[in-house]
Amino acid sequence: MPLDPQRAIADLKELRALTSDENGAQRVAWTDTWLKAREWYRAKWQELPVKQHFDSAGNNYLTLQGTSEKTLLLGSHLDSVPNGGWLDGALGMMAGLEVLRRFAEQYNGQPPITIRLVDWADEEGARFGRSLLGSSAFAGTHSIAADRVRTDRDGIRLEDALRSCGVEVDRFPEAERERTHAAAYLELHIEQGPVLERLQLPLGVVLGTKGVERHAITFHGQEAHSGSTPMNVRRDALAAAAKLALEIRPIARKHPDAVCTMGSVKTFPGIVTAVVGRCEATLDQRDLDAAVLAEMHREARDASSRFAQEEGCTVEWSRIWSIEPVPFHPTLVTFCQQAIEETAGASHSLPSGPLHDAAEVSRAGIPTVMMFVQSLGGISHNKIEDTKEEHLTLAVRAFDRLAAKTAQWIINS
Amino acid sequence: MPLDPQRAIADLKELRALTSDENGAQRVAWTDTWLKAREWYRAKWQELPVKQHFDSAGNNYLTLQGTSEKTLLLGSHLDSVPNGGWLDGALGMMAGLEVLRRFAEQYNGQPPITIRLVDWADEEGARFGRSLLGSSAFAGTHSIAADRVRTDRDGIRLEDALRSCGVEVDRFPEAERERTHAAAYLELHIEQGPVLERLQLPLGVVLGTKGVERHAITFHGQEAHSGSTPMNVRRDALAAAAKLALEIRPIARKHPDAVCTMGSVKTFPGIVTAVVGRCEATLDQRDLDAAVLAEMHREARDASSRFAQEEGCTVEWSRIWSIEPVPFHPTLVTFCQQAIEETAGASHSLPSGPLHDAAEVSRAGIPTVMMFVQSLGGISHNKIEDTKEEHLTLAVRAFDRLAAKTAQWIINS
Repeated sequence: MPLDPQRAIADLKELRALTSDENGAQRVAWTDTWLKAREWYRAKWQELPVKQHFDSAGNNYLTLQGTSEKTLLLGSHLDSVPNGGWLDGALGMMAGLEVLRRFAEQYNGQPPITIRLVDWADEEGARFGRSLLGSSAFAGTHSIAADRVRTDRDGIRLEDALRSCGVEVDRFPEAERERTHAAAYLELHIEQGPVLERLQLPLGVVLGTKGVERHAITFHGQEAHSGSTPMNVRRDALAAAAKLALEIRPIARKHPDAVCTMGSVKTFPGIVTAVVGRCEATLDQRDLDAAVLAEMHREARDASSRFAQEEGCTVEWSRIWSIEPVPFHPTLVTFCQQAIEETAGASHSLPSGPLHDAAEVSRAGIPTVMMFVQSLGGISHNKIEDTKEEHLTLAVRAFDRLAAKTAQWIINS
Repeated sequence: MPLDPQRAIADLKELRALTSDENGAQRVAWTDTWLKAREWYRAKWQELPVKQHFDSAGNNYLTLQGTSEKTLLLGSHLDSVPNGGWLDGALGMMAGLEVLRRFAEQYNGQPPITIRLVDWADEEGARFGRSLLGSSAFAGTHSIAADRVRTDRDGIRLEDALRSCGVEVDRFPEAERERTHAAAYLELHIEQGPVLERLQLPLGVVLGTKGVERHAITFHGQEAHSGSTPMNVRRDALAAAAKLALEIRPIARKHPDAVCTMGSVKTFPGIVTAVVGRCEATLDQRDLDAAVLAEMHREARDASSRFAQEEGCTVEWSRIWSIEPVPFHPTLVTFCQQAIEETAGASHSLPSGPLHDAAEVSRAGIPTVMMFVQSLGGISHNKIEDTKEEHLTLAVRAFDRLAAKTAQWIINS
């Protein structure tokens, strides 16, 4: 079958109808609705000349065997956050299916290299708070020993939920075998941000995924009565946190793509009649350049100490999580740019703030690139997540061109 | 019996032992522990030549009948916040008992004017969120029609809790009868702030209770992904709130005794990976001067609008509660100052930030003044609330002198 972007869009709508409710997509990994989505997906590839298997981490592989074992890997994920959108993850899967179909038709069932499409298990980490689960097993970077005892909101353990889907966490390391022969990895995703829309461009080349420094910051002051405590003797933990909430902005703005976010502030005792004695905040800092990330982290720490001192408070930092920046492969970045320019006329290169399975694959040493398609309003993880159909069409065509260029590169290598 | 400050201190310790646990005082109004405190109090006044009665709002009056019906009213409260201190309220009651004893002895059971000591019901409002309940019934300023359906954390309604203590809310207006003949009202209380301690003075004259403007302020911005949303397109509700948290300080500092407090900040969705889309804050503003209070309120509103605009947000204000400033009676303020100077050598005049039953009595047109005694560390509503015993002794002596001066003033009037 030739490439048919309209079929991909129709499939996406079918999947939405099957796995959404009035609040949006409900394909949370390791739940019945996710299994239903995978069952629906099975019907989609049954007609293709591919072999299917699950690896030990629940990743779902379709293999179009080529003359050579050298493999072009395409991937995305069918799982969603609760109340999610129709495109996040699913678009990459449906575009990947189109590319598989096109290769199968063009080479009469046996292309010169092997093409594989993987549906990563639990990209979102929505149920157990551990994202990129399947791809980290593939990359050998998983932390399953620590994660197996995570529980969901009902107290069900991660390892038990996986077992009920046929996945044994003790066998996770076997998923690394899938890396054999993988020569390149490509992923199409919605941007989930406003950059392409503001540039009025349908498609963009992803330069890599930003590194993240994520910390909990607690300012300790002195709880005091709001009526009886003069302004000049207060030790107001909120004031110190407020200064930091504002200071992280100039810290980020020194760098073109850097972001710093204070997403949560909690005040204790948190009542209208008391000066805040303790203020807990979170800070999320991201950049594609590890040196910039380290500098921003240092500047925020220094600023927090200064503000704590100014307000008669103390401050503590505790790392929640961090990941280094993952720049994508320069040759594949060039192919991606060419594919976009040939399809849509103009391209833009940008780092990805959100993480993606592509980061794990790239960390495993496999040449990787991602393509972004515009998100309307920059909104994702929400039922109103959307992309113009003409842009979805361009995305599937450009992604197929990228796959063709990459396959040729693998053949030539 | 002559005045015996040591007996008042011993009584306070006895009450603490009876009604506290490891977390502090638990004499929350309309609970068993509060009723136990009142039962213990009954034994204290049984030996005095007084008549006792409850008014229709549960206020507990002891009346030492004088030759004249003209009445000097002394008052405080036995109720506490949960996990409260041993002195808040209870000190005023025990000091009042000493003054009653002294009058009874000096005048052989019948002073020239009538002396009454009132234990106001539910000063703290800890269980139902409605403070000054008993004294507002006395003053006729109660809002019982609106408050009767308030519920505690277990869903029990205010009117049902009061009924189980023998109080019918429909009869609240009858409490206003107690105002008849009341010629002056005096109240001794711990400062609950750090001012006297910083001045190294044991006692202070209270000029009045500050007016309060208490508002909920909500900034509405746009929730956005922390990784994919560039700094320059964000509409960060937390940033607007942080600016206001800092701006209320210069607004307050223009005036010597004014205070502005942001005690609570809540962020929504309040997760590490999202720019804050909605930020809810509280603002509590207080001053003894109504014009200053109005100016501060206006300045904070204007600032919040400016900050909302700067951050691409909108802002809403909603009044939680307000009360006008209540300045105390100038003659009684002078008496209080003299009584302190005669007892402790030096005095200081200050407004009260916290509200007290005295504010309700004063609003009812009865000449009123309060005396403060130093609080160690300015801490109250906490089990570590404390005052030096030598200061408690001075407080009881100075309060008795104030009562004597006020009684003479009433006789002469």
